[in-house]
Amino acid sequence: MLKLYIGNKNYSSWSMRPWVLLKQAGIPFEEVKLRFDSFDANSSFKEKIGRVSPAGKVPALDDGGFVVWDSLAIAEYLAERFPGKNLWPQSVPARARARSVCAEMHSGFGALRSACPMNIEADLQEAGQLIWRDKPAVRADVQRLVAMWSELLAEHQGPRTAADAPSGDRETKSTGGARFLFGDFSIADAFFAPVCMRLKSYALPVPAEITAYIQRLNALPGVKAWVDDALAENDFRDFEEPYRIKR
Amino acid sequence: MLKLYIGNKNYSSWSMRPWVLLKQAGIPFEEVKLRFDSFDANSSFKEKIGRVSPAGKVPALDDGGFVVWDSLAIAEYLAERFPGKNLWPQSVPARARARSVCAEMHSGFGALRSACPMNIEADLQEAGQLIWRDKPAVRADVQRLVAMWSELLAEHQGPRTAADAPSGDRETKSTGGARFLFGDFSIADAFFAPVCMRLKSYALPVPAEITAYIQRLNALPGVKAWVDDALAENDFRDFEEPYRIKR
Repeated sequence: MLKLYIGNKNYSSWSMRPWVLLKQAGIPFEEVKLRFDSFDANSSFKEKIGRVSPAGKVPALDDGGFVVWDSLAIAEYLAERFPGKNLWPQSVPARARARSVCAEMHSGFGALRSACPMNIEADLQEAGQLIWRDKPAVRADVQRLVAMWSELLAEHQGPRTAADAPSGDRETKSTGGARFLFGDFSIADAFFAPVCMRLKSYALPVPAEITAYIQRLNALPGVKAWVDDALAENDFRDFEEPYRIKR
Repeated sequence: MLKLYIGNKNYSSWSMRPWVLLKQAGIPFEEVKLRFDSFDANSSFKEKIGRVSPAGKVPALDDGGFVVWDSLAIAEYLAERFPGKNLWPQSVPARARARSVCAEMHSGFGALRSACPMNIEADLQEAGQLIWRDKPAVRADVQRLVAMWSELLAEHQGPRTAADAPSGDRETKSTGGARFLFGDFSIADAFFAPVCMRLKSYALPVPAEITAYIQRLNALPGVKAWVDDALAENDFRDFEEPYRIKR
């Protein structure tokens, strides 16, 4: 059985990506949560993850003792390991485009990530308004996301086929239209799921078609399961809370 | 013909990765250099790259009008497009490991990247000594690199076979031993080539086997060609020079 090492569900945006991907694709796995106590070298978290992954970070995937780390490398590994799940889009150009936007996310959007850390349970709309007013780099990051998603959603219109659907995604099979970034749910949507969480928690302004995409993503069983767990977590970590004193 | 858009060769570490990969694998391409004037939205650089890539960054690869952006997505695209070149290691676990370390580089090593920007032509050993003394996060980044490379070089010992060699890498075919991170030159070495440049320019202390790896990498024709061009570039950009007033 695959084992996925993750951090706190309310906070760990990188952990969310492969977890949602596995869940939504219907790939069985065991979750091992390593609670964030701090990120100091001698923290319990660092000590525990250090025994699993040489990079000392979540997420890490253990496949029968073989460990793959980093969200993007895990996604690539799962795409190869479960070819029938079509985790990447199937056409060469769509797959290349999906990898481009995932890699852009993976190394970029620093202003948004730094000013608006993921915090699923929190209502941070006041902080969001100040950030939006004062941080042009955050506005530029969101503007880029909106342009990217709008273009992809417009390009990948058209009825989906049952054959394209990841097997865990059964309830969407009958729906037509550009539901997700590459038509059907793919690694790209899993990669942007944490960003959708941030846009929602901080109530950053986006056009209606983007709000609709965020709602569709939130309605996916794999995303909903993570969000429900995050809401039930009840584990306030002050070093992850630049905008709250308490819950 | 493939077209690769890059920045200044002396400074653009992300551009170096796919350029060295293409060159070393013997894949023909046309280079289009977009000189860094500034990274403001209205700079000539941003205006020119914005016409090519929606992400507005180098590198970007144009394959007959189809554009792939981001160094890692470009590497994946080339690996699929030229399967005979074995750009990734061929075994499933080695490939997964190579993707893990490339992804770790792609989103990590922030302290080293920020304190020690790539600057191939410069002798920055005095700056390097101060950085090494004062910045524990840089020391931790280098320590992680040393651990990663030492482990990989030790694991991938053993004679290489001619069949494994990328075709552009002819002069290395007769040599045995763990020359590169996964035995033969791969995307992983291209990904760490800019880090090797930094370790050298800033003269950061590393063990002898790591120095030897850096020397082997520097001797590759694909790396040497980039370095020679960088040395001949003669284009001092003050916003890329935290440690020099002039050349």
